Amino acid sequence: MSRRARRSQEWNVRASALARNTHNLIRNIVDNLQVEPNPDKPFIALSIGDPTTFGNLNPPEQVIQAIRDSVELHTSRGYAPSKGHQEAREAVAVYSAHQGDISAEDVILSSGCSHAIELVITVLAECGQNILVPRPGFMIYKTLAEGLGIQIKYYRLLPDKQWKVDLDDLENQINDDTAAIVVINPSNPCGSVYNKEHLSEILDIASRNQVPIIADEIYEHFVFSGNEFTAISSLSKDVPVLTCGGLTKRFLVPGWRMGWVIIHDRHNILGREVRQGLANLSTRILGPSTLIQRALPAILKYTPQSFFDDVLLFIENQAKLAYAELLRAPGLRPIMPQGAMYMMIEIKISLFSEFKNDLQFVERMVSEQSVFCLPGRCFEYPNFMRIVLTVPEDALREACQRIAIFCKEHIDMEEKCKEINSN
Amino acid sequence: MSRRARRSQEWNVRASALARNTHNLIRNIVDNLQVEPNPDKPFIALSIGDPTTFGNLNPPEQVIQAIRDSVELHTSRGYAPSKGHQEAREAVAVYSAHQGDISAEDVILSSGCSHAIELVITVLAECGQNILVPRPGFMIYKTLAEGLGIQIKYYRLLPDKQWKVDLDDLENQINDDTAAIVVINPSNPCGSVYNKEHLSEILDIASRNQVPIIADEIYEHFVFSGNEFTAISSLSKDVPVLTCGGLTKRFLVPGWRMGWVIIHDRHNILGREVRQGLANLSTRILGPSTLIQRALPAILKYTPQSFFDDVLLFIENQAKLAYAELLRAPGLRPIMPQGAMYMMIEIKISLFSEFKNDLQFVERMVSEQSVFCLPGRCFEYPNFMRIVLTVPEDALREACQRIAIFCKEHIDMEEKCKEINSN
Ligand SMILES: Cc1ncc(COP(=O)(O)O)c(C=O)c1O
Ligand SMILES: Cc1ncc(COP(=O)(O)O)c(C=O)c1O
Repeated sequence: MSRRARRSQEWNVRASALARNTHNLIRNIVDNLQVEPNPDKPFIALSIGDPTTFGNLNPPEQVIQAIRDSVELHTSRGYAPSKGHQEAREAVAVYSAHQGDISAEDVILSSGCSHAIELVITVLAECGQNILVPRPGFMIYKTLAEGLGIQIKYYRLLPDKQWKVDLDDLENQINDDTAAIVVINPSNPCGSVYNKEHLSEILDIASRNQVPIIADEIYEHFVFSGNEFTAISSLSKDVPVLTCGGLTKRFLVPGWRMGWVIIHDRHNILGREVRQGLANLSTRILGPSTLIQRALPAILKYTPQSFFDDVLLFIENQAKLAYAELLRAPGLRPIMPQGAMYMMIEIKISLFSEFKNDLQFVERMVSEQSVFCLPGRCFEYPNFMRIVLTVPEDALREACQRIAIFCKEHIDMEEKCKEINSN
Repeated sequence: MSRRARRSQEWNVRASALARNTHNLIRNIVDNLQVEPNPDKPFIALSIGDPTTFGNLNPPEQVIQAIRDSVELHTSRGYAPSKGHQEAREAVAVYSAHQGDISAEDVILSSGCSHAIELVITVLAECGQNILVPRPGFMIYKTLAEGLGIQIKYYRLLPDKQWKVDLDDLENQINDDTAAIVVINPSNPCGSVYNKEHLSEILDIASRNQVPIIADEIYEHFVFSGNEFTAISSLSKDVPVLTCGGLTKRFLVPGWRMGWVIIHDRHNILGREVRQGLANLSTRILGPSTLIQRALPAILKYTPQSFFDDVLLFIENQAKLAYAELLRAPGLRPIMPQGAMYMMIEIKISLFSEFKNDLQFVERMVSEQSVFCLPGRCFEYPNFMRIVLTVPEDALREACQRIAIFCKEHIDMEEKCKEINSN
């Protein structure tokens, strides 16, 4: 780094490389959009990954009550141990029993799942090393790693195979500097859900190459009918798995910043050093607010299954609705999700000769149809766009219909005929 | 870093240098104490910097009510912008008007003051650079910086001058790699409060050497009668000041993790880069819980002055009580604080030939008198110990009396006579 020249007459204060190289891809792209919605049509944002934005999805009464109770407790105000209150960590261990044989000792509370991810990346990876991340995938990994000099390497997901991992590609990406493989299941942005067999294939690669797994399961249990959620840790025979989770999505309280890391290490491969390292890192800023820590046991225990079922049923119906509507949009290919809260849609960009790329496509859709979808480049995946399924039903239908109109108006007729003829 | 040998048969997962080099000095020392209290005397911890531990100090009703109201708000559940909700940042700007001319744009909310400190250290300092920190001083700076390869250099505080900064030493410590000077005022562990003149002397050094200041003012306004609190930013003519604060101490809610950074940069020396850098860093884990963000305007507005006055009066009286009692302890020299919640006490260790150092001294005091004080080494300041003043009055009196007994029982009579004779 350039050193500051003390004797110069001018102040010269720079931001660190960490600060300069911390980028939030979605924010950068969304904040730099240069378009205004069409004033004649109400704006519909299909871009916002916050399920609480529209007021149609709310946390269950039991969760709110647990906080009301916590507020009155004298013990909800003082510092917690940096890994979190013991009872809260015990409650997470019980709630997460499907992940494997764990106890409170294996749980570290964090300030949201993002902080959990920061903890596991920074404990496992060193400046100069790399972590393998799915593409398309949620970009917090890039935001957190690159500033620290940890390289992100992508492995391919296959849109034609319900976004399964391209296993050859995954294995090929591993090198001597690979510190971890990130598996996001269910996936943001794909909505894919991996079955046991596929998860085992991923574990085999990790085992053969002796690379630990970071399991991002913030959407655990978020699967549509006919699919089953399996925690990858529950299948691991030897591979150490650090699972990141939290209340954010399933309990519809993203702003509360309650997350956790769970250490799965049956063969004690991580040993004292990594456990101690996580404990060390947790002392940097301490964990989540004690107001929520104290409520956590009741939140995890008393939220009824019917609440989860209702939310999931709603989202599944939304997925079906959007899928059916978007099938009518020429030049698009929606890919039906199996879980989470999103759908990816391919834009056959060669059929829209007016637009160079997904960004121009979604920008023009804002200015003409007042519908905004996240362009695939937010996930380093061009010529796709992502929609969220949690908006109210009427808004979703209306938005999909406008998307179809937009496509009809802009699809390149000549190109389309050519395509039809060549088939 | 050693690279992982993929072809070996053995797993070899290491913790990163960041994780290994993140140390919490207080935790390390406290957790490794090998002593049991005397079973015949109730244990009194004068070590715990959490003012809510003993139940005698509680947040005001207005603060609790603000949270009760926030819980019911639909808008207290969703994600906030990564720098924090606009209204909450505006409220902090108004509350902090004594610091200088600031607006919501200058405020970034954080997950406690520790996170604020992490943000400002990481935006200003680079691996290989150094930051100057007072000794004795609160050790979060070491915890946060060293793992990132940012060196901590200490400047001296002068116990005989009410812990004022040794200005020559401060200036001498500055070199080409100095990224910031940390000023903790009022101080943990010293309880010192600097007047305008002294703060200006510090600013002059920063200005002459063109080093920005990190102002740790988590104890702002926490000053005893006859002293005045001045925010160092309010005196700065050119030096950029990043002030770290929060609800933690003044509102008696350390567990809630609500802190903030305030950017003071009258001459736009930090420029876009540092501001943008802080914004970038805030996207890593997002800020504090929205439950508390939504309550923040009411908390800052409605807490009555009488609440603060009552807490301060209590602590000031405790300081007087402890000081008077400890003057009777041979071989100790209590240093009367002017604010915050702590008192430093010199242990004239040469008069206690049984004990090699402050650690042995405080350990034996636990096993004989069931009183625990933090040894000076927790602040890299040997032959002192720190007591907290927020324990209930009876406990404080009892503890100080036991300390005096302990000193009388262990002071080296011969040494004492020698000292008396030589004077
Ligand atoms: C896959 C994935 N991981 C992690 C996160 C971050 O969760 P949190 O808001 O709890 O930090 C998200 C949020 O959208 C996500 O989609
Ligand atoms: C001087 C000083 N700065 C910062 C902190 C950290 O405050 P918080 O608990 O808000 O992270 C403390 C806590 O004791 C402190 O004494």
